[in-house]
Amino acid sequence: MSVPTAVADQSLCAPLGVLGSDVTVPLVTGGEVVYAALDYAASAPALQRVWDDVAAYAPYYGSVHRGAGYLSQLSTDLFENARRTVSEFLGCRADDQVVFTRSTTDSLNLLAAALPADCQVFVFETEHHASLLPWRDARVSFLDAPRTPGEAVATLERALADRDPYGPALVCVTGASNVTGELWPVRELAAAAHAHGARIVLDAAQLAPHHPVSVQELDVDWVAFSGHKLYAPFGSGVLAGRSDWLRAAQPYLAGGGASRKVARREDGGVDVEWHESAARHEAGSPNVIGAYSIASACKALTEAGFDTLVARERRLIATVREGLAEVPEVRVLSLFGDDAPRVGVISFVVEGWNSSHFAAALSAEYGIGVRDGLFCAHPLVRTLLGGTPQTQGECGAPEAAPGEKSLNAIRVSFGAGTPDEHVERFVRAVKELVSQGARWNYRTEDGRCVPDTGGATASATA
Amino acid sequence: MSVPTAVADQSLCAPLGVLGSDVTVPLVTGGEVVYAALDYAASAPALQRVWDDVAAYAPYYGSVHRGAGYLSQLSTDLFENARRTVSEFLGCRADDQVVFTRSTTDSLNLLAAALPADCQVFVFETEHHASLLPWRDARVSFLDAPRTPGEAVATLERALADRDPYGPALVCVTGASNVTGELWPVRELAAAAHAHGARIVLDAAQLAPHHPVSVQELDVDWVAFSGHKLYAPFGSGVLAGRSDWLRAAQPYLAGGGASRKVARREDGGVDVEWHESAARHEAGSPNVIGAYSIASACKALTEAGFDTLVARERRLIATVREGLAEVPEVRVLSLFGDDAPRVGVISFVVEGWNSSHFAAALSAEYGIGVRDGLFCAHPLVRTLLGGTPQTQGECGAPEAAPGEKSLNAIRVSFGAGTPDEHVERFVRAVKELVSQGARWNYRTEDGRCVPDTGGATASATA
Repeated sequence: MSVPTAVADQSLCAPLGVLGSDVTVPLVTGGEVVYAALDYAASAPALQRVWDDVAAYAPYYGSVHRGAGYLSQLSTDLFENARRTVSEFLGCRADDQVVFTRSTTDSLNLLAAALPADCQVFVFETEHHASLLPWRDARVSFLDAPRTPGEAVATLERALADRDPYGPALVCVTGASNVTGELWPVRELAAAAHAHGARIVLDAAQLAPHHPVSVQELDVDWVAFSGHKLYAPFGSGVLAGRSDWLRAAQPYLAGGGASRKVARREDGGVDVEWHESAARHEAGSPNVIGAYSIASACKALTEAGFDTLVARERRLIATVREGLAEVPEVRVLSLFGDDAPRVGVISFVVEGWNSSHFAAALSAEYGIGVRDGLFCAHPLVRTLLGGTPQTQGECGAPEAAPGEKSLNAIRVSFGAGTPDEHVERFVRAVKELVSQGARWNYRTEDGRCVPDTGGATASATA
Repeated sequence: MSVPTAVADQSLCAPLGVLGSDVTVPLVTGGEVVYAALDYAASAPALQRVWDDVAAYAPYYGSVHRGAGYLSQLSTDLFENARRTVSEFLGCRADDQVVFTRSTTDSLNLLAAALPADCQVFVFETEHHASLLPWRDARVSFLDAPRTPGEAVATLERALADRDPYGPALVCVTGASNVTGELWPVRELAAAAHAHGARIVLDAAQLAPHHPVSVQELDVDWVAFSGHKLYAPFGSGVLAGRSDWLRAAQPYLAGGGASRKVARREDGGVDVEWHESAARHEAGSPNVIGAYSIASACKALTEAGFDTLVARERRLIATVREGLAEVPEVRVLSLFGDDAPRVGVISFVVEGWNSSHFAAALSAEYGIGVRDGLFCAHPLVRTLLGGTPQTQGECGAPEAAPGEKSLNAIRVSFGAGTPDEHVERFVRAVKELVSQGARWNYRTEDGRCVPDTGGATASATA
């Protein structure tokens, strides 16, 4: 009754169905090619299953909460069931709250607005800006970039032990870096936080689409993620976790849905009684389609099985990393070194190339969509690029002032919907571009590096 | 070359195509019927055109902003073009900003977070909670409910003239009430505000789906509306208007996209340079599908022509109001009286009935979806219900404590997608329920009034 090996291998070959997998795009050099979406870390395509669920529901869409009609009640049930599905997907504790937000950024801003008085926040400088910046009303300690997972834990422990005054504290940490793809030692950081009386929130924006996340197993207090990186790009995100701080906080948005009772006072003012459930922070009509699409994606990933998804992605990662390793001009950015476990997010620079130029050539000449820049993690990318100035010249990063070092990198990222051909084409393209150069001329237009309508480069036309 | 009258009349008969127009729902009394969605004021169905646009775009969905790929650039252009479409739809000034938010509630909370220091806010107690409650950091003057549009203007003028200290001030006013559907004298209120050195924001959540809104003609400083009431239920809303307060304010959300440059300081802290464009308040990956769907709806409504839409809706309003007027037990809620211009939003109570019970019977026995409650405008509905206690008993409002008056009303609302048959069925159903009573027994379950599985009422089974 064991599964034949051939079947198991087969399951490793097939990506999950996603929208746009047959979209072709024009090449500047002529002809069309199937688009290779390799910017999953920014936004992943919708799973076909998610789209089908949304399309099947859309005619039944109705007003939620106090709507008395059949479709209103159906939509209300669908919305509340989505909460339960997300709670199961994240392995939440029974009394955790699941709040639907619009994105990870929104989730972390919500938590920032719910911090208790005098809360200190500890965050590594290596975080995405969404984790780095929301803590505006708190005293924030930015921790230096660690070069091993163990150093991360030691750095955090030291900072928490030394904190003054010793009051409420929150640690915010990513599960997987949006720049290097490297996994952070979340369980160990959570243990360190709790040992020092702090709480911890996991930024799972890059982790949840690739790896199982269990709030209980990791013992984190909150987790945040985005639908648009989890194959459900319909404007919703999630903050899930402990309810006490959320219940005690002022409502994130003030308005209907969050308010249970509003009455004028005799003195002319207004008294408000707020809900204590997740609705407290969800004022306004909820994004039912957004929440439902996330629930659908959670189910689809769970049913596909993270064991299979992780194994398949590991193969894609190996293809890319081994391919890049064969090009001496390529330097892959890494905090924790080659052996660190990682998800399908890989950033690099190419000697002799400005990253914007390289990314534009990948797009225009190979139909490959990657990203260039600093990936909303400026301190980390600057640290990783360190002493390596980018080549100046054609399509330099638009933010580089004259004489200033042009610092940016290229990021390739992929996931459950990526066919092998996309990463294979990417590796081939990198090798060709480095060895043969671009076949077209490029220029900067409106801050973008684009093919010059003037035509092909001298070498290509020669 | 004049259009034949028959064609013009025909255009008044045809609703715009919406999703779900052929959805049938079961009746508790047996059989199925096409669902009559009459809760547009909460959430309107998606226009078929909006859905088709979203479905056509979905395979081309890609990461926006710094994505170098073809689909990323296409999606970025689509997102920024949506901004321009909304700006045109609203008749914005050339230098106005259009910020994509998640809803009207979110838009007004954003504006509340952008008020200058010591700003006073003036808001009528008759507003939706989304307009009433967001001004938490400001000194708020709640103005008594006016009983004529002229009284509204006079009340505002008095309050603004008397304000102390005489500093920056904001007036927040609805364009059309979400309870009575009555239009507010926005242009006159804007003139009064400006004459007294105040600014004004228009809550167009209920106005924009029904009437043309022109920022310049009304001379308002900002306008807010929601996609889900404008036939585009994909999680986006809009705040559009003057850029100065928005540019001067702290970013609404802190994170990537809003930050232009982030760098560690020598002292260990972090310096942030924020964008000054709309991106300043849109941190996180934008909801491209949400923004695009709103742009699609703006185009569809503009192309259908508001003259035609308004004329058609006026006929539906007349059908409902004339029908309800024939039932002496029905009292329609109104601030400004029978002659006030209005949109398709009508609230009422029925003598001898609890509103939840009545709404449940409309749903279960006629397949009609209305709403019961206080419509997130508690002070207004309490004022309008005044001395009229609702009938206690079966399916009383769940929030009514024992001995407390059960106060709630029924709201029927409709728009560009509503066929005549829906409002005709509604009028017939009201008359039958009032004259013959419900044919089924109802009970309260989980805060909802639902048909009792026990069966039909004695009178119906007799």
